[in-house]
Amino acid sequence: MKEIKVGFIGLGIMGSAMAMNIYKAGFPLIVYNRTRSKTEPFVKLGIPVAESPREVAERSDVVIDMVTDAPDVEEVLLGPNGVVHGAHTGLIVIDMSTNSPEHAKYFARELGKYGVEFLDAPVTGGDVGARQGTLTIMVGGKYETFERVKPILEAMGKTIIHAGDVGNGQMLKLLNQIVVGIDMLAVAEAMALAKKAGIDVEKLFTVLSTGAGNSFTVQYYMPKMMKGDFEPGFRAAHLKKDLRYALETANRLNVSLPGTALTLQLYNALVAKGLGEKGTQALLKLYYELAGVNDW
Amino acid sequence: MKEIKVGFIGLGIMGSAMAMNIYKAGFPLIVYNRTRSKTEPFVKLGIPVAESPREVAERSDVVIDMVTDAPDVEEVLLGPNGVVHGAHTGLIVIDMSTNSPEHAKYFARELGKYGVEFLDAPVTGGDVGARQGTLTIMVGGKYETFERVKPILEAMGKTIIHAGDVGNGQMLKLLNQIVVGIDMLAVAEAMALAKKAGIDVEKLFTVLSTGAGNSFTVQYYMPKMMKGDFEPGFRAAHLKKDLRYALETANRLNVSLPGTALTLQLYNALVAKGLGEKGTQALLKLYYELAGVNDW
Repeated sequence: MKEIKVGFIGLGIMGSAMAMNIYKAGFPLIVYNRTRSKTEPFVKLGIPVAESPREVAERSDVVIDMVTDAPDVEEVLLGPNGVVHGAHTGLIVIDMSTNSPEHAKYFARELGKYGVEFLDAPVTGGDVGARQGTLTIMVGGKYETFERVKPILEAMGKTIIHAGDVGNGQMLKLLNQIVVGIDMLAVAEAMALAKKAGIDVEKLFTVLSTGAGNSFTVQYYMPKMMKGDFEPGFRAAHLKKDLRYALETANRLNVSLPGTALTLQLYNALVAKGLGEKGTQALLKLYYELAGVNDW
Repeated sequence: MKEIKVGFIGLGIMGSAMAMNIYKAGFPLIVYNRTRSKTEPFVKLGIPVAESPREVAERSDVVIDMVTDAPDVEEVLLGPNGVVHGAHTGLIVIDMSTNSPEHAKYFARELGKYGVEFLDAPVTGGDVGARQGTLTIMVGGKYETFERVKPILEAMGKTIIHAGDVGNGQMLKLLNQIVVGIDMLAVAEAMALAKKAGIDVEKLFTVLSTGAGNSFTVQYYMPKMMKGDFEPGFRAAHLKKDLRYALETANRLNVSLPGTALTLQLYNALVAKGLGEKGTQALLKLYYELAGVNDW
């Protein structure tokens, strides 16, 4: 399997760690990043760097992109120097960014015109999971195509799920983000009331983490929130984007999601306050402000 | 310590298991329940049954009550045949029901007039925790009183927290319920959208339970929801009550809790549909109905 040539586009925090795991698994690799300086760790290892997404496609069997949002994916795949212009027989494109099922279907349709197979394969597990190769990867697209690239995905992730047709990978990721977003609301509301009611948040943490209130959010984010550490793991602006896509799909399907809608509105306010580049746990700052708590 | 005579009032699912653990720990015990038949397992063990809460108080050093809501506590403690009429020097009353900080302060004040010490000590951990003696118990009231009864609490729970003054036990419990309620909203919204978007909920469960969306709610309730099992662990009507108390306190303190407010409104609707005696996970039925999903 290792003779599959892999091209990787987008060497941010997540992408660089994922590409490095593909290299370590023994696949021939070529990389591209808009900001050239981020390719340096790869250059040092003798990994070739392409001049454009087009060149990545020309020199690969499978192209993976891990960029921020749908417009970035569109430029990388379909833009003037995009992957589509390097299309050749058997090329498979895997978009591992998070956007929407509608975007995935659009990318699949456009690339399909050039005979290129497309999979949407967003991930969860954060920068830690990317580094350790323990991501959960949710894949939409043809099952045969999924099977062909599975060894590459297994270099990056631990739980690899075929979610169904093109778009279903994104859909499954957005469902995850609904839960992640609302769980943050839960902790922020409890902490805000605790503060005003004079309850020691250390004691609140003990109660939540030992009982029915326990969650990844409590275990991983609440200690940061207690310390006033709002640096990103996962950026508030990115969660806002994901909730927006989730609601666009819900609106199209007439699914009433009042909790998700409320959570998006609060993240809109957080981004408007200039805190979009902070971690999702910065939602607590909004709650403290609404409650007149001055803690930092 | 074991010569402390304990009286236990309220032998429901939780109370009977908790009283039994006190008995097993070796404390002399007397019990009372409004519906006499529920005392039978205690009678069989030779445990005395009182005719009234008043008699329980007369024959005990420490009286524990575990009943449903504040009006029940008021009747048991302050009613015509209540604990207060059996008050004697050194009597301690522990209310382990969940109600509000305001109620706890009221009970403490009224009992204080008769020289009775009061602790509010609500629990989390459900019927399983009650049987296994692994409850989390959150105690409000004087520290010296807390220390005196701690051996009794340790017979029922694993994590025993002194939360502060009278009322703070209830407050800490209500904060827990905020998180429990909103976490349920999160799972119900994701499942409703999954259903309409054609995503396999088994796959959604895999994603949530292996990543940042993981929670007690996902682990314990989501499998029930997937099977259409809405029998109570914890009743929807009780969660509704707890959220109402949480919001009353938030309103008094001017703490803005839009997620808790929304969750209460949805549980109001669930109770209005006649589903208050179902488990809290029946919230999914409301979401499916709003989305036009017919699954059961």
